[in-house]
Amino acid sequence: MDFFPSALENLIDKFATLPGIGRKTAQRLAFYVISLPDGEAQDFAEAVTMAKSSVRCCAICLNLTDGEICAVCKNERRETGVICVVSDPKGVLAIERSHEFRGRYHVLHGVISPMTNVGPDDIRIKELIARVADGGVEEVIMATNPDTEGETTARYISRLLKPFEVKVTRLAYGIPVGGSLEFADDATLMRAIEGRMEF
Amino acid sequence: MDFFPSALENLIDKFATLPGIGRKTAQRLAFYVISLPDGEAQDFAEAVTMAKSSVRCCAICLNLTDGEICAVCKNERRETGVICVVSDPKGVLAIERSHEFRGRYHVLHGVISPMTNVGPDDIRIKELIARVADGGVEEVIMATNPDTEGETTARYISRLLKPFEVKVTRLAYGIPVGGSLEFADDATLMRAIEGRMEF
Repeated sequence: MDFFPSALENLIDKFATLPGIGRKTAQRLAFYVISLPDGEAQDFAEAVTMAKSSVRCCAICLNLTDGEICAVCKNERRETGVICVVSDPKGVLAIERSHEFRGRYHVLHGVISPMTNVGPDDIRIKELIARVADGGVEEVIMATNPDTEGETTARYISRLLKPFEVKVTRLAYGIPVGGSLEFADDATLMRAIEGRMEF
Repeated sequence: MDFFPSALENLIDKFATLPGIGRKTAQRLAFYVISLPDGEAQDFAEAVTMAKSSVRCCAICLNLTDGEICAVCKNERRETGVICVVSDPKGVLAIERSHEFRGRYHVLHGVISPMTNVGPDDIRIKELIARVADGGVEEVIMATNPDTEGETTARYISRLLKPFEVKVTRLAYGIPVGGSLEFADDATLMRAIEGRMEF
């Protein structure tokens, strides 16, 4: 027997399918939503529908946008000669936050991962190659995550870019700013020593 | 500048208003929702609307229901002479799970809490008094949470019920089953000793 009305059970089920949301949390969220004033619950439902229907991938860099072209690609003050390759739109957000990068992006929407059956053709690599082949690109910065899959993807792409006259770089590894040597893992320390720079 | 399309930012904002959901989690959830197949995102939005529009309070006990009367009140095999008073519908669920209680419920939808400006008239106490005044009730079991506000509410209600010929009890305090003396707090231990029973 369900103790709650079926519409409420259904909403709890829906919340429970979200990543990182367990049954108890789903219950808490569902109760909160039905306790909202009518208008606000409706707003919530509409936000889901709108986001799903209006958000698409930028025709150039595949970042998320609600137009044809994303805000970065539309911005004429951004350099077109440098492309920063990230695995997902959250990567764009992270790099933008640093205010250091003035070029464009390319969002792969995934990384090569044999474990989960994601091959090179399952992510947006050929769109990147096409952009580079079109010319005008001087440098491609690989900014996939510093893990095995991100590394593999970066290496794979850098091999594909060999035939083109383009510099392929990747983000520097090292000790995080504000971090402590004591807590740095061996692999990071090794990379930090390898990549040491002159004052 | 927002880095994400406005519809996506809006959905992130909406998720971030949910209790216990921070900005990062809201982002993760919103990204997940827009990555769902069309139908499923739509189902999610509809689940919110449906739950909000179809769930109401039982006309008798104020538990949540999608009809006029909730499943417990509709069940003729439940004793009508015993009412278990809980602060919210999750309390009903908890007590039902124990399979120990065969009476009816009364859901207060809150507890008296001077700190957050919730007085006796802000929760559903008068509906309870009306039920008891109607007669046929032999016992009222107070099952509000064992904290200051739950206690206060229970005491307040038990005073209001004095004029009626009805037994007012409350759930026993004590060591949780499977718990360990070592980890029981002083207040619980004190209550457990106070409430000790003969073998």
